Amino acid sequence: MRHPDFSQIPFSERENSKEKGIPFPHSLFESGIPPYLRGPYTTMYTQRPWTIRQYAGFSSAAESNAFYKKNLAHGQKGLSVAFDLPTHRGYDSDHVRASGDVGKAGVAIDSVEDMVLLFDGIRLDDISVSMTMNGAILPVTAFFLVTAEEQGIPFSRLSGTLQNDILKEFMVRNTYIYPPKASMRIVSDIFSYSSRHLPRFNPISISGYHMHEAGASADLELAYTLSNGWTYVQAGLAAGIPLDEFAPRLSFFWGVGMDHFTEIAKLRAGRVLWAYLIQSLNPKDPKSMMLRAHTQTSGWSLTRQEAYNNISRTYLEALSAVLGHTQSLHTNALDEAISLPTDFSARIARNTQIYLQQEPNITSVIDPWGGSEHVEKLTHELIEKAWHHMVEIDSLGGMIKAIEQGIPQRKIEELAVQKQIEIETAERIIVGVNAYRSAEEPPLPVREIDDISLREGQIRRLRERKRVRNSEGVQEALNRLTQAAEGKENLLSAALNAARKRATLGEITQALEQVWGRYKTSPSALSGVYARGMEKKEDYQEARQLSRRFAQTHGRQPRILLAKMGQDGHDRGFKVVATAFSDMGFDVDISPLFQSPEEVAQQAADHDVHFVGVSSLAAGHNTLVPQLLEALSKHQCEHVHVILGGIIPEQDHEHLYHLGVRAIFGPGSVLTESVRQILQPWMEDKTST
Amino acid sequence: MRHPDFSQIPFSERENSKEKGIPFPHSLFESGIPPYLRGPYTTMYTQRPWTIRQYAGFSSAAESNAFYKKNLAHGQKGLSVAFDLPTHRGYDSDHVRASGDVGKAGVAIDSVEDMVLLFDGIRLDDISVSMTMNGAILPVTAFFLVTAEEQGIPFSRLSGTLQNDILKEFMVRNTYIYPPKASMRIVSDIFSYSSRHLPRFNPISISGYHMHEAGASADLELAYTLSNGWTYVQAGLAAGIPLDEFAPRLSFFWGVGMDHFTEIAKLRAGRVLWAYLIQSLNPKDPKSMMLRAHTQTSGWSLTRQEAYNNISRTYLEALSAVLGHTQSLHTNALDEAISLPTDFSARIARNTQIYLQQEPNITSVIDPWGGSEHVEKLTHELIEKAWHHMVEIDSLGGMIKAIEQGIPQRKIEELAVQKQIEIETAERIIVGVNAYRSAEEPPLPVREIDDISLREGQIRRLRERKRVRNSEGVQEALNRLTQAAEGKENLLSAALNAARKRATLGEITQALEQVWGRYKTSPSALSGVYARGMEKKEDYQEARQLSRRFAQTHGRQPRILLAKMGQDGHDRGFKVVATAFSDMGFDVDISPLFQSPEEVAQQAADHDVHFVGVSSLAAGHNTLVPQLLEALSKHQCEHVHVILGGIIPEQDHEHLYHLGVRAIFGPGSVLTESVRQILQPWMEDKTST
Repeated sequence: MRHPDFSQIPFSERENSKEKGIPFPHSLFESGIPPYLRGPYTTMYTQRPWTIRQYAGFSSAAESNAFYKKNLAHGQKGLSVAFDLPTHRGYDSDHVRASGDVGKAGVAIDSVEDMVLLFDGIRLDDISVSMTMNGAILPVTAFFLVTAEEQGIPFSRLSGTLQNDILKEFMVRNTYIYPPKASMRIVSDIFSYSSRHLPRFNPISISGYHMHEAGASADLELAYTLSNGWTYVQAGLAAGIPLDEFAPRLSFFWGVGMDHFTEIAKLRAGRVLWAYLIQSLNPKDPKSMMLRAHTQTSGWSLTRQEAYNNISRTYLEALSAVLGHTQSLHTNALDEAISLPTDFSARIARNTQIYLQQEPNITSVIDPWGGSEHVEKLTHELIEKAWHHMVEIDSLGGMIKAIEQGIPQRKIEELAVQKQIEIETAERIIVGVNAYRSAEEPPLPVREIDDISLREGQIRRLRERKRVRNSEGVQEALNRLTQAAEGKENLLSAALNAARKRATLGEITQALEQVWGRYKTSPSALSGVYARGMEKKEDYQEARQLSRRFAQTHGRQPRILLAKMGQDGHDRGFKVVATAFSDMGFDVDISPLFQSPEEVAQQAADHDVHFVGVSSLAAGHNTLVPQLLEALSKHQCEHVHVILGGIIPEQDHEHLYHLGVRAIFGPGSVLTESVRQILQPWMEDKTST
Repeated sequence: MRHPDFSQIPFSERENSKEKGIPFPHSLFESGIPPYLRGPYTTMYTQRPWTIRQYAGFSSAAESNAFYKKNLAHGQKGLSVAFDLPTHRGYDSDHVRASGDVGKAGVAIDSVEDMVLLFDGIRLDDISVSMTMNGAILPVTAFFLVTAEEQGIPFSRLSGTLQNDILKEFMVRNTYIYPPKASMRIVSDIFSYSSRHLPRFNPISISGYHMHEAGASADLELAYTLSNGWTYVQAGLAAGIPLDEFAPRLSFFWGVGMDHFTEIAKLRAGRVLWAYLIQSLNPKDPKSMMLRAHTQTSGWSLTRQEAYNNISRTYLEALSAVLGHTQSLHTNALDEAISLPTDFSARIARNTQIYLQQEPNITSVIDPWGGSEHVEKLTHELIEKAWHHMVEIDSLGGMIKAIEQGIPQRKIEELAVQKQIEIETAERIIVGVNAYRSAEEPPLPVREIDDISLREGQIRRLRERKRVRNSEGVQEALNRLTQAAEGKENLLSAALNAARKRATLGEITQALEQVWGRYKTSPSALSGVYARGMEKKEDYQEARQLSRRFAQTHGRQPRILLAKMGQDGHDRGFKVVATAFSDMGFDVDISPLFQSPEEVAQQAADHDVHFVGVSSLAAGHNTLVPQLLEALSKHQCEHVHVILGGIIPEQDHEHLYHLGVRAIFGPGSVLTESVRQILQPWMEDKTST
């Protein structure tokens, strides 16, 4: 790794930066010229504002299609497809593990037919399509390409972006399928396919967003995202693709949170760092050094309480992204800490961007923050801090090795626990959550998805499609795919062939799984991090005291199994809870990710736990939690208290309590208080263990 | 006027500003040191954030009191009292001209007893109280001081602000009572009274806000506000008060609109200009040069359509104010283009500020924009432009003379018409208004005031108070006040004496009116300004064509009487409509301000108009419009079409149409379209004239 030494870049003009090597500060840079500090393009928004790209998708392909058409009619320029979790994880809707997640957090796509329906009446050469897909990137991309073929559009005219950033999945997002090395093979095969056939497509969107949401600081988000990017560049070069043929089409994806100046500085710092990284590879095309980014406002910063405040939060974050020169932007809806966005909230979210482009006269300036002492200094500090982390990753042998050792994961998790402590101790104020709380909440409508009948519909259509296709042709194509995984044939070519033959998403995934297997991780909890931050707090000591009393009363520590069910891999809150509960005197078992309700019940019975804590952030609770309660009862575990955490809309609470759930905690819950609340019933009723 | 010549200030460091006189740019300045470019205080928000000061008041003193107490309990630190229009104009609630406006756009205060009730349970030495009062400043301040006396609080411990800026009333806001010279006498008497007795009170808040709302550009708002400030300083000096005894307590009041960078630059430019103005008077105390400001987000920028967007608009404006270093801030509620704020919308508005202080980490930096090329350049440009206007005012003999000639008024009105044209031609985009319109609107609750029974209650209490007081003592005190107006006694002392004796607001006003009379103006329309901007537009030509056809059909031009009824002096829209209609071929009569329905009907009959266009922005329409329709019918003018414009909540429309109103136009109406809509019925029905 031959990076220049950024620690040597002098910030201040007073230090005569011109003489000392790499030029800094801003006044020596111009937008549109490497290292792109002041924006990747020369005229920036003065000629064309950023692309409004709202990430959306839910329920069936037909329903999502109707939603997209409406948005396109209202001034949206690109589409960004959200897939449901079974699709992400390579399961057809009829797979047993898909139960509970079909069409919930995105659209269910099982086959070419679903994709055709998704873009019905939307010409794929008219718009750019971003697809947030990683694990099942091969079948999904293949379906998309077949859809273009059936619309009669040559691949060369398709524009859009694949997320296809598998490394961050292993770090934070968990919607991987295969092990890291096989996954990297897929990435480079897609690079080489698209460098030949998809000249206007970004074959990857290297994502810091999910690290941001998982708790990473700006410097960690920068460092790990760019280190991932560096790893992909090495993979592309190793696959024999010339740098200038793929580097200009690499794209990035940032999260922006509430720290206004830092987020602006982060986007600027990212461009400078990337330019210097690529410069070290001697590109001929200056575009190879250009970091272009999509940005999304932070979901984590939204609150369930006083949800109308989220409009301003999202607005501020959008402003940060724009003043940091993002190329496209997704703004979250105000109700996303409560449920999936409704038409009402989605409209406000989109308007936020339209209005930001049209009204406040901020697109008329190329780089408004250029020269600001504060933001320029922050930018420089972030460059230096991120560089320090990148050198560390490099010294561990690169990102893949670092991930295998769990190092970046642990650093991010530590920061997530830190943030939780700051919130619980009110060191970090969140209006409506730990300060200025309101007794009443204005009512908000909630979108509901009937996943059971949706799944039935998907299953019916899958059966019908399997009936009419040529089974032999499908089997041949799947065999060829398996051979490609064992051999050298380009995997996207082989997947495309299978898609043309109408192999399903699950089948294509399975054909590769035969060779590579399915990757599994067992999350573990950090210990001591919560304790260190909280030990002086009375609430914390009281919670510990209570768990000691529990142990005295019941003969052993309170034992909790923390579980994620279905295909929901959002594990930030889950891990924070594991750390905190463990530090508060619980014996904490953590289930592997992606469990079925039966598997969780089995583990609860095996470990004789007092509590099962279920974390649900992808709307699967109404289907999976009743199944869990039933399975527990089958295992004679009726005495186990089931606790829910995550995004559980208010109107579902009554039903869930009625079924037997003992407590429900939303975002922003104080964990010392949660401990008190769940242990209390056991202190009153000694017989229940 | 011995100002330094700002046109000589070099902006760029490259021009070696140090050598060339007054230092610029920012890097040579520090916050807390004149000219205060980088903030009036050294540590700014890092030690203490701005004061959240929400302007509020409605209905009776008792209801407003309850509202204030709730807000104080939720973290608000100061009160800002909104008075109703009859109070502003010096009428007791029982005055015939008060009908329709009692308790509508603020609280009704007739007497000391009302003021005592307003602050019941709120100790006046605990909080700072801002009072938006100008015309009736003497009785209102006197009532406030008597309330403090009755709470047992010495005047020296009172802190707060009087608006007391009468010059801008003559320019734009119209809630004056007496002629300019007499009004200026009141201002300087309050200066001298407060320099002796109210050391912690700001005796004036010199207001650009209303100019901003009337359509002034940033440079005009700066220039005219500071020129008004300069006039008050001269008045204070002429009254023999030493500069350093009153200059440090002068305060300012800005509006912030949607032009983000310009608004930030405006607040910075204002401080520099004021510092240099006062420096020319050789102050000993550097605080005399310090411009401290309250800021309010723009009401004009809010839209009736897609009102939830207003949350972001207000948020952005608040951010501009804060990044420009305001000392206190009012954020508007999202529904203010529709009606008075509800508890729901008022809460979101207040939260916007709390959240801005607590979450996005912007208070940790003293001057984030310091050094930004763009904002520093804008700041400098605004200083120069404003300086140019100030020199012009000075050359006209100062602000009072300029106002008497109508010059600043006209410049502001021209800009208001310009903005209307920009909106109609979609050169300026307002989301939801002239672009991205939505068919459906999410429902919003609306606050209603029952002014008729409220007025009855006020009248009952007035009678009761008049019955129990010592009438002779009251008469004596009023006589002394009249003599003070003729002579030299301090007017606030004399008013205070009358208030102690329980003279009412109306009586105190009347005692002075005997000497000075009541000031009247007849608004006139600019002509040709709308035509110049619109003549190439098809819609405009069609509207002109339509009015020509009207003239052919009916034998004369369509004639419209534009009227403001009651005490509502908001005349921006009214004047813009006058100009536009006149340019579109109407014969436009403009009524004087503050008419009774009977007076308007009389004028309509006298001038034989086809239309009466009523502008209502202070919620008086439900009372005054029915009275107008009745009066028109009494004058046999049933054929006259009554048109409403302004802020008329949706739910009032049906009733108003039922009574006979022909058309209702809200904020953001396109005037060419309004013309089409009101002329159309006359083209179909030739017999109606």
